[in-house]
Amino acid sequence: MARLPSSYEPPVHAFGNRLGSNGLYGDLRAAILTGRLRPGARIPSSRELAGKLGVARGTVVAAFEQLAAEGYLDARPGSGTRVSAVLPDTLLSRVGPARSRAEAAHSTPALSARGRQLARTPFPIAPALTHVGAFRPHMPALQEFPIKLWATIVSKQARSLTTQSLVDGDARGHALLRCAIAEYLGSARGVRCTEAQVLVLASVQQGLDLATRLLLDEGDLAWCEDPGYAGAVAGFRAAGIAPCPIPVDEYGMDVAWAERRHPTARMAYVTPAHQAPLGVSLSLPRRLTLLDWARRRKAWIFEDDYDSEYRYSGKPLPPLQSLDENDCVLYAGCFSKTLFPALRIAYLVIPVGFADAFAAARSVTSRYPPVLDQLVLAEFMREGHYARHLRRMRQLYAERRSLLVKLVNQRLANKLEVMNNATGLNLVCWLTQGLSQDALLERCKSSGLAVHALSRYSAEWKRRQRDGLVLGFASMTAPAIRIAVGKLAGALDC
Amino acid sequence: MARLPSSYEPPVHAFGNRLGSNGLYGDLRAAILTGRLRPGARIPSSRELAGKLGVARGTVVAAFEQLAAEGYLDARPGSGTRVSAVLPDTLLSRVGPARSRAEAAHSTPALSARGRQLARTPFPIAPALTHVGAFRPHMPALQEFPIKLWATIVSKQARSLTTQSLVDGDARGHALLRCAIAEYLGSARGVRCTEAQVLVLASVQQGLDLATRLLLDEGDLAWCEDPGYAGAVAGFRAAGIAPCPIPVDEYGMDVAWAERRHPTARMAYVTPAHQAPLGVSLSLPRRLTLLDWARRRKAWIFEDDYDSEYRYSGKPLPPLQSLDENDCVLYAGCFSKTLFPALRIAYLVIPVGFADAFAAARSVTSRYPPVLDQLVLAEFMREGHYARHLRRMRQLYAERRSLLVKLVNQRLANKLEVMNNATGLNLVCWLTQGLSQDALLERCKSSGLAVHALSRYSAEWKRRQRDGLVLGFASMTAPAIRIAVGKLAGALDC
Repeated sequence: MARLPSSYEPPVHAFGNRLGSNGLYGDLRAAILTGRLRPGARIPSSRELAGKLGVARGTVVAAFEQLAAEGYLDARPGSGTRVSAVLPDTLLSRVGPARSRAEAAHSTPALSARGRQLARTPFPIAPALTHVGAFRPHMPALQEFPIKLWATIVSKQARSLTTQSLVDGDARGHALLRCAIAEYLGSARGVRCTEAQVLVLASVQQGLDLATRLLLDEGDLAWCEDPGYAGAVAGFRAAGIAPCPIPVDEYGMDVAWAERRHPTARMAYVTPAHQAPLGVSLSLPRRLTLLDWARRRKAWIFEDDYDSEYRYSGKPLPPLQSLDENDCVLYAGCFSKTLFPALRIAYLVIPVGFADAFAAARSVTSRYPPVLDQLVLAEFMREGHYARHLRRMRQLYAERRSLLVKLVNQRLANKLEVMNNATGLNLVCWLTQGLSQDALLERCKSSGLAVHALSRYSAEWKRRQRDGLVLGFASMTAPAIRIAVGKLAGALDC
Repeated sequence: MARLPSSYEPPVHAFGNRLGSNGLYGDLRAAILTGRLRPGARIPSSRELAGKLGVARGTVVAAFEQLAAEGYLDARPGSGTRVSAVLPDTLLSRVGPARSRAEAAHSTPALSARGRQLARTPFPIAPALTHVGAFRPHMPALQEFPIKLWATIVSKQARSLTTQSLVDGDARGHALLRCAIAEYLGSARGVRCTEAQVLVLASVQQGLDLATRLLLDEGDLAWCEDPGYAGAVAGFRAAGIAPCPIPVDEYGMDVAWAERRHPTARMAYVTPAHQAPLGVSLSLPRRLTLLDWARRRKAWIFEDDYDSEYRYSGKPLPPLQSLDENDCVLYAGCFSKTLFPALRIAYLVIPVGFADAFAAARSVTSRYPPVLDQLVLAEFMREGHYARHLRRMRQLYAERRSLLVKLVNQRLANKLEVMNNATGLNLVCWLTQGLSQDALLERCKSSGLAVHALSRYSAEWKRRQRDGLVLGFASMTAPAIRIAVGKLAGALDC
């Protein structure tokens, strides 16, 4: 390529395979950015250049116009077209070889202090779901999900989309879905709310994020169950809140202990219906003590009604929210376990006076939820499919759980003690003997078992006397459970 | 209803219309919670009660079991069933009439300091879209969106859902969509990235929220264009960042002014391709100065490639991201204007070294995006529908814009001066005379015109000499434009 310091000689050969204004545009721009064409350099007229290159003049004009629009070229009546003289020095510093990685890293900015905390997550960024193994906890029976029925409703709702629905944005969520959720929660869970208190979200995690940012300030304390849901601990940290691990026993979170140790906490995260991961219910006395603490301290309760739908004896316990007289309970739930995780729809029920603030915060941090999915779910609920699916899954999971309990008691009773809460998607078993847990988990893994250790859910497990296993049963067929118990027996040397 | 302090007399009349364990359960629970049944009170045997009520004994047993599970009743061999003695004092405080609103408000907790800032939003929570009026800015031609084609792809993808796809969660977004976006951005916009740098989000707003929380700390400063996008200003405030309004002229944001006034800012929010709302491009010298400032100060640039797709002469300008050598540019875009807003899909292109941190932050604050919508959009892009739709809209909008410019110049030239940037969905017109803007907007509104005043986009408009109008044209047919210009002429007394 010709290198003239004060005028442009087009690289004719280059146009053999990329004729047109794009090629010329790119060449000229590269020549300017690399300093081959200096500021003020004269550019031939479009007529002249078109002749030299053997292209249509319009092609050259288009390239010139683009470069002028971007500030690379300057066309003035009388003085022809020149490389812009006002290019700053930084442009010239771009001349020369690309900088090394080390140099680039030196001038790259970094995460902020709070950003380093925020980037910590207990969730895998891209789970490799093809290698999961038996007993994987927290897994519903997706094989039993009525995909065809769902697809039919999706198709129907997609065909019914109107110009209006393409722009239907409500930061609280679509009114039809909010009504369906409020109705379901009222009848199935005893939640006292209207649709105006329901906020449709992408996940309970998003609800916790909004709640901590709206209701707490940096450095505030929050009670978390221990063992408990790691997402809550991480969610608090992400929002600059210090999580306080509170021990859980057979009556749920030890509220009295929590108040003695951390009386000034501003929020309590609890899973009262079905403690994650132990499966126990928060006892009534503790519920009332918790509400009383919140009232006296003007603190908040984030009630994650985790897996409350799956209770196999008696009906699910009514939520804390239904006992709240101080508008201090935020009630959260989601459809990931009851329908399917990739749906990404959850909800928060908010005390009346705070619903607008939550909607505003959702709007300014992520706007509003996608419309089609909400319309589909609203129809699925309205037509009774949701209630039917829940009933069917409750029955199925109860059978699967019974089988697993029976087999564990038959074959593994000298090593595992079943924690007998007929709830949830997982069975918790205490290790009865001083087994080396790390070695056990390694053997489970190599046998294709995806069991979790209870200590995985705990920040302070060292204090505990013994560990346990969390066995997911909901997604496993009876034959699969039988095979997996055999493998577990092998891993436990039973 | 009988009120016995030490034993339970069922309200027989109450069972006339709500037989069954639920009714009995509710009555007993209410009696305990209101103190009508005191701790320790004896409850008749299930047989006795069933006889009195004339219901099946199983019904009574079910209610008892539920109440025992919740801790209200205590059943001990030999001593019969009694109201739980361990109910704490708080329970009794619930006796008596419901508290007044004022009392409740007194003990209700409040928003936190940062929460009050977060709850401020420039977006309507639930827009009333049926009353919008002509010239509404930022509105694409949704009437022209190929809804049927979209519905066909939705149906196809819904029918193809597998058990695996029901649980396909990637915090970065679905790989198929990330690939489609990376390919589109590379070819159509000159963005240099791989799919590993693409983060699929619900909105640009969510991208800004993540960026400010990951990269900035509370109290940091950020440059914002003035006039500019109100969502950016609000987004910064929501994350505890102080937005610094930077004037915009015909070359875009005045970067030199910004550095003189606020040299220590940690981030600049810019719309370089098509400044929102003026429509100008950031000039090349200013682009380079901005990049140089970011390099020297180790600051970040948030490039919102706002409406860059809609440029009606020449091709869209290449983004700042393509000139970035310091990994300091975050490139954001979305499908709300090019497809439809209710889709709720946007993206952020992140410097290689920070992609994992962003994915982690997205995961801990809201998990991952819904899968079906992403599969649909990926197919729509892969099959070329997206590029075709964009071409068609570009052509249509160019025609609509030309018509509007022609009519304004013909009929309103003595009152409005067209800002002639052939870009975007809106036409900006300066008011040439000292018109009272408030009165003008009032008259526009009563004529059914949804025009915006330029000052609406500005924090510091007082400094400016004159105001202007923002006229949305993209969603208006030619006849509608003609009618609306007539109404505008009336409002302007032309």
